[in-house]
Amino acid sequence: MRPSKRAADEMRPVTMERAVARYAEGSCLIKFGDTHVLCTASLEDKPPPWLRGQGRGWITAEYAMLPRATLTRTRRESTSGKPSGRTQEIQRLIGRSLRAVVDLPALGERQITVDCDVLQADGGTRTASITGAWVALHDCLAWMRQRSILKDVPLKDQVAAVSCGIIKGEAVLDLDYVEDSSAETDANFVITGAGGLVEVQATAEGAPFTSGQLTTMLGLAGSGVERLVALQKQIVQAR
Amino acid sequence: MRPSKRAADEMRPVTMERAVARYAEGSCLIKFGDTHVLCTASLEDKPPPWLRGQGRGWITAEYAMLPRATLTRTRRESTSGKPSGRTQEIQRLIGRSLRAVVDLPALGERQITVDCDVLQADGGTRTASITGAWVALHDCLAWMRQRSILKDVPLKDQVAAVSCGIIKGEAVLDLDYVEDSSAETDANFVITGAGGLVEVQATAEGAPFTSGQLTTMLGLAGSGVERLVALQKQIVQAR
Amino acid sequence: MRPSKRAADEMRPVTMERAVARYAEGSCLIKFGDTHVLCTASLEDKPPPWLRGQGRGWITAEYAMLPRATLTRTRRESTSGKPSGRTQEIQRLIGRSLRAVVDLPALGERQITVDCDVLQADGGTRTASITGAWVALHDCLAWMRQRSILKDVPLKDQVAAVSCGIIKGEAVLDLDYVEDSSAETDANFVITGAGGLVEVQATAEGAPFTSGQLTTMLGLAGSGVERLVALQKQIVQAR
Amino acid sequence: MRPSKRAADEMRPVTMERAVARYAEGSCLIKFGDTHVLCTASLEDKPPPWLRGQGRGWITAEYAMLPRATLTRTRRESTSGKPSGRTQEIQRLIGRSLRAVVDLPALGERQITVDCDVLQADGGTRTASITGAWVALHDCLAWMRQRSILKDVPLKDQVAAVSCGIIKGEAVLDLDYVEDSSAETDANFVITGAGGLVEVQATAEGAPFTSGQLTTMLGLAGSGVERLVALQKQIVQAR
Amino acid sequence: MRPSKRAADEMRPVTMERAVARYAEGSCLIKFGDTHVLCTASLEDKPPPWLRGQGRGWITAEYAMLPRATLTRTRRESTSGKPSGRTQEIQRLIGRSLRAVVDLPALGERQITVDCDVLQADGGTRTASITGAWVALHDCLAWMRQRSILKDVPLKDQVAAVSCGIIKGEAVLDLDYVEDSSAETDANFVITGAGGLVEVQATAEGAPFTSGQLTTMLGLAGSGVERLVALQKQIVQAR
Amino acid sequence: MRPSKRAADEMRPVTMERAVARYAEGSCLIKFGDTHVLCTASLEDKPPPWLRGQGRGWITAEYAMLPRATLTRTRRESTSGKPSGRTQEIQRLIGRSLRAVVDLPALGERQITVDCDVLQADGGTRTASITGAWVALHDCLAWMRQRSILKDVPLKDQVAAVSCGIIKGEAVLDLDYVEDSSAETDANFVITGAGGLVEVQATAEGAPFTSGQLTTMLGLAGSGVERLVALQKQIVQAR
Repeated sequence: MRPSKRAADEMRPVTMERAVARYAEGSCLIKFGDTHVLCTASLEDKPPPWLRGQGRGWITAEYAMLPRATLTRTRRESTSGKPSGRTQEIQRLIGRSLRAVVDLPALGERQITVDCDVLQADGGTRTASITGAWVALHDCLAWMRQRSILKDVPLKDQVAAVSCGIIKGEAVLDLDYVEDSSAETDANFVITGAGGLVEVQATAEGAPFTSGQLTTMLGLAGSGVERLVALQKQIVQAR
Repeated sequence: MRPSKRAADEMRPVTMERAVARYAEGSCLIKFGDTHVLCTASLEDKPPPWLRGQGRGWITAEYAMLPRATLTRTRRESTSGKPSGRTQEIQRLIGRSLRAVVDLPALGERQITVDCDVLQADGGTRTASITGAWVALHDCLAWMRQRSILKDVPLKDQVAAVSCGIIKGEAVLDLDYVEDSSAETDANFVITGAGGLVEVQATAEGAPFTSGQLTTMLGLAGSGVERLVALQKQIVQAR
Repeated sequence: MRPSKRAADEMRPVTMERAVARYAEGSCLIKFGDTHVLCTASLEDKPPPWLRGQGRGWITAEYAMLPRATLTRTRRESTSGKPSGRTQEIQRLIGRSLRAVVDLPALGERQITVDCDVLQADGGTRTASITGAWVALHDCLAWMRQRSILKDVPLKDQVAAVSCGIIKGEAVLDLDYVEDSSAETDANFVITGAGGLVEVQATAEGAPFTSGQLTTMLGLAGSGVERLVALQKQIVQAR
Repeated sequence: MRPSKRAADEMRPVTMERAVARYAEGSCLIKFGDTHVLCTASLEDKPPPWLRGQGRGWITAEYAMLPRATLTRTRRESTSGKPSGRTQEIQRLIGRSLRAVVDLPALGERQITVDCDVLQADGGTRTASITGAWVALHDCLAWMRQRSILKDVPLKDQVAAVSCGIIKGEAVLDLDYVEDSSAETDANFVITGAGGLVEVQATAEGAPFTSGQLTTMLGLAGSGVERLVALQKQIVQAR
Repeated sequence: MRPSKRAADEMRPVTMERAVARYAEGSCLIKFGDTHVLCTASLEDKPPPWLRGQGRGWITAEYAMLPRATLTRTRRESTSGKPSGRTQEIQRLIGRSLRAVVDLPALGERQITVDCDVLQADGGTRTASITGAWVALHDCLAWMRQRSILKDVPLKDQVAAVSCGIIKGEAVLDLDYVEDSSAETDANFVITGAGGLVEVQATAEGAPFTSGQLTTMLGLAGSGVERLVALQKQIVQAR
Repeated sequence: MRPSKRAADEMRPVTMERAVARYAEGSCLIKFGDTHVLCTASLEDKPPPWLRGQGRGWITAEYAMLPRATLTRTRRESTSGKPSGRTQEIQRLIGRSLRAVVDLPALGERQITVDCDVLQADGGTRTASITGAWVALHDCLAWMRQRSILKDVPLKDQVAAVSCGIIKGEAVLDLDYVEDSSAETDANFVITGAGGLVEVQATAEGAPFTSGQLTTMLGLAGSGVERLVALQKQIVQAR
């Protein structure tokens, strides 16, 4: 039995709330249990300098944690002088995941920055960020279409993410912080609405894992993402 | 008539919510209208290095804004490499204001860091931060007393802050962003529960101001802080 | 009786010497007792990037101390990697104070940088800096008029600054370092030649202060600035 | 047919040369075709500060490219001020991969730093780095055993890495730079001598990939790593 | 007798190998005994910003050591955040030395960056760098002439460098690391093919030196550079 | 005839003023014509960390220019984030020059920092700095002896420095800024009171120079330093 007493394929309660930030073109407060992430999408009317004149847009992401999102206070990265390697790794992952489902030429020469700020952290902050970021991005693109900046919402699909792990030899879905700390293997899966794989990252923290275990985790992740994608759909169709 | 249509001595609706952060020893989400600040107080069981062995504690503050707290997105300070001059000025002000009402020797060789993270900004973020920070600090100190780390809560008084300004020659209380941008003079007042002045900062943005105008603003600020202090008292006495 | 034995309203001897820097368009070596600041004004023939094309000029200030201006050596900020919060706070104050008396549109698309370098520090370095900076700025503007870069000297007024404090409950004028260290309240006042207030900053270092004390300090500061403004006038009219 | 004309499961010629650095305790110059990486292992007789007193050692890795390892010159990271996100991501990966096969308690309170400096880059620099780093690490540990610093070489297994990709829908092994640029999916696999998975990272650069494609790549990677592991064994057993 | 047992005027074995870097326009791996430096010359088709529109080109140099080029591991400068004073001093010296023999107007509005990366360090890394850098630069310029980017190779002369020192009162040529550490005086000479002096840097590490000793070192250096220049000529004329 | 109309062996007027900084243990304001440098020596009662427990002291130097010491304003190094290569090169030179004449073991486990701040720059700032720094250092050491911190002043000799150059083929002494800009060769010589050479740095800015020219410059520098050393002696013996 896993530390959280959840079944192997049981996710924490997930909620998403739209339009939580007064000024952002799109926003979503997503909760995976006690992990809370505020995602905002900000439109900038020009692409990054290295993309000028290429007729395409860009989606980028930034990720941060409030200092007391964590059990003990974490030093602020503006004080230590630069984003840590972990932060950069996560924000590159979020950006890649979103770009995988956006039609960048249809976006035109513009950039959307999605900020994922972790208000409270209990494991799975990067997967919650990706899932909530898609909603914020969707709403930003819908905002642009309403103002006729875009003809259509240039989204090819939805995208969501969930973690898996191997705990005492068994594959489980959606690890919280305590589970993450004790897992032998830790994996993150980014999957589209159609079930295509965008990113698979699996890391042995203790003993190596087998391809059978990878396949089992992939199955769990697939079912988890299905539920997340259904929730995203429900929320963006609401109003 | 001021841009917000409020009376000269009318503050925006103020709310404070305690215990909003799962892990922090004390926390408060304070709202001055559309300005929302999340304040958390974190206890560290040793003083800063320069204070070791002096038998006193320390209160320090950090201040930041989420990138999309503002009308247009603001660059993250961890990306630009260091806190801006404005950020440092504000966090020094918050720290000084809190220390003015704490009995530092009674705190013992410990440090409490109060983080003020602006989730949404519509003017007056520094005054809302100071006012909410006092609640978070109070609750952190109360948490310490409950665990017998301290015998008493080492607070000498309450402290709160409010802004004033001169708009079209008239002194008004608690400026929002639009008012702040059009004010001829912008002032911040930090005042204790007993009505003592902790900090007065008044700056002419256009024409210089007179000592009569300073006195009028001081009066408005005094009445505003009285209301804030009453709210603080009510919230920390709840349950 | 105050530590310096001066009367409550007695300033230290003040001297100003013009044209002390061979290359600067304007310069002033100002002394408030043992506080010595070298102020230079440098003309740059374009505005800062964010002001381009707006038909206005800009005045900015930088402030620094030589490492051994102080009782014990202070680490050089180029070594520690960035200006401290205190340095940034002071240079923002100097810049705002000067801009309050300059007709920026009349300056045209140019920038003047006033450098205030403290050669020796005995309290009141920011107030001496502002007072001397005005002389350096005046001479830079006069230099421009002489060369027909400007038709008139675009100064709306003079500006000067002085500190006050509360020592053992009594308000005193122009604190030296020892007095500053023992004052219960420390205040800086920036005032125009016409007596208008540009900036008031009062901070309780120990017990809070009262509005009566603030008013008394304001009165002392007004009389101090009158004397500084008279000295400035005398020196810029010389020759 | 893939751009390099190689068969789908054909690696580039791989060579490893030991003891190439005069001063390092262990070293290896590894070549995957035109990708050349110099790996050195350096023993330091104390663990990193955060591990003191825990009776365990640590393996860390640093990764860099010479400026002209690449087709066009790349800016030196010491000039730009900090390692890029990509560099940090790679050096964290190398470190994790090596630690997965080291018995850290048996290493004692020591740290070994493995530097992977890319002399020439034609794709697959991270996988070549991991594979060569294991040889350098092995030789450093053997050097320690020869000097009786360690009783045994505390290695639990070998570890090596190889990339795979999807090009025009087909899975291929060991991508060079041109192939990497045109691949729809790019994946890296870190696998032990016993065939256990240490790290799987697969990223869709264009269309998402399927779990069938992931399985095929996993199979190719397994066979590639078998050959690398055999080469490692052969070289460390030489003489 | 000197520590290396070499005669006072005896250099270490010197070898130079051209075209060692696949992508660079010119490259040279130079060895002064156990000091090995990889020099690459990279053409950029525009001059540095401060030279735009002046009809001249520029040669610049960067210098670095691999972390384990040295007896004990040296911290990477990208980790410490900036090139050290020593590194900057050396790269300025290499750049000046090369520019002394290049016809910069004939180069046109282009920049060549010569990177000198020390693979192994046993004293004399800066002199080996200069000597090898000339070969890399020559080959880059020849590459440009072959592609008709330049009509002629705009080199006015060759340039090479060698160190001298005073050990136990006697002047010796080409110090290795052990000799360098024990020398009373340490000197570097940069000399053209025609025997002209480009740079003389002599530093007393212990007792001051005399002008007689300087003259003797100058003579040794002249003969050393003659041999280096002959080797350079031989290698660049090969095929 | 040289630009300054001075004879080839004619220095600019040199003055030195002691005890110009109220707080420093030793200080000297030195002027070489229009080059003015304020040198202060600051005692710290412990050595740098890397020298602890070795029973020796250390002398270090820092060098900076006020922003408007120069013809046009130079950016402050605290703003650009780090000392430039030129600054670091000069402060290393000043430090080495002073250490060459100090008996470091006799100084005990202490550090003296000599700050050389250029108030006005007209060429030769590093040579003026070294010459004035010796006076400041002498006075700091004398201050220590007066307080019985040291038994004797641990100075083995005096040290001073002067520049030379080749202008239109002729060697001249003590270049001002205009001469320095037009010189074909630029050289700095650091020489002890006894005439021993501590540092020789000669750089061809245009055509290479000959050993004959180096010898001539060495002669000029020797006579220049003799005069500087006489002035130093006179000033430290005054009172």
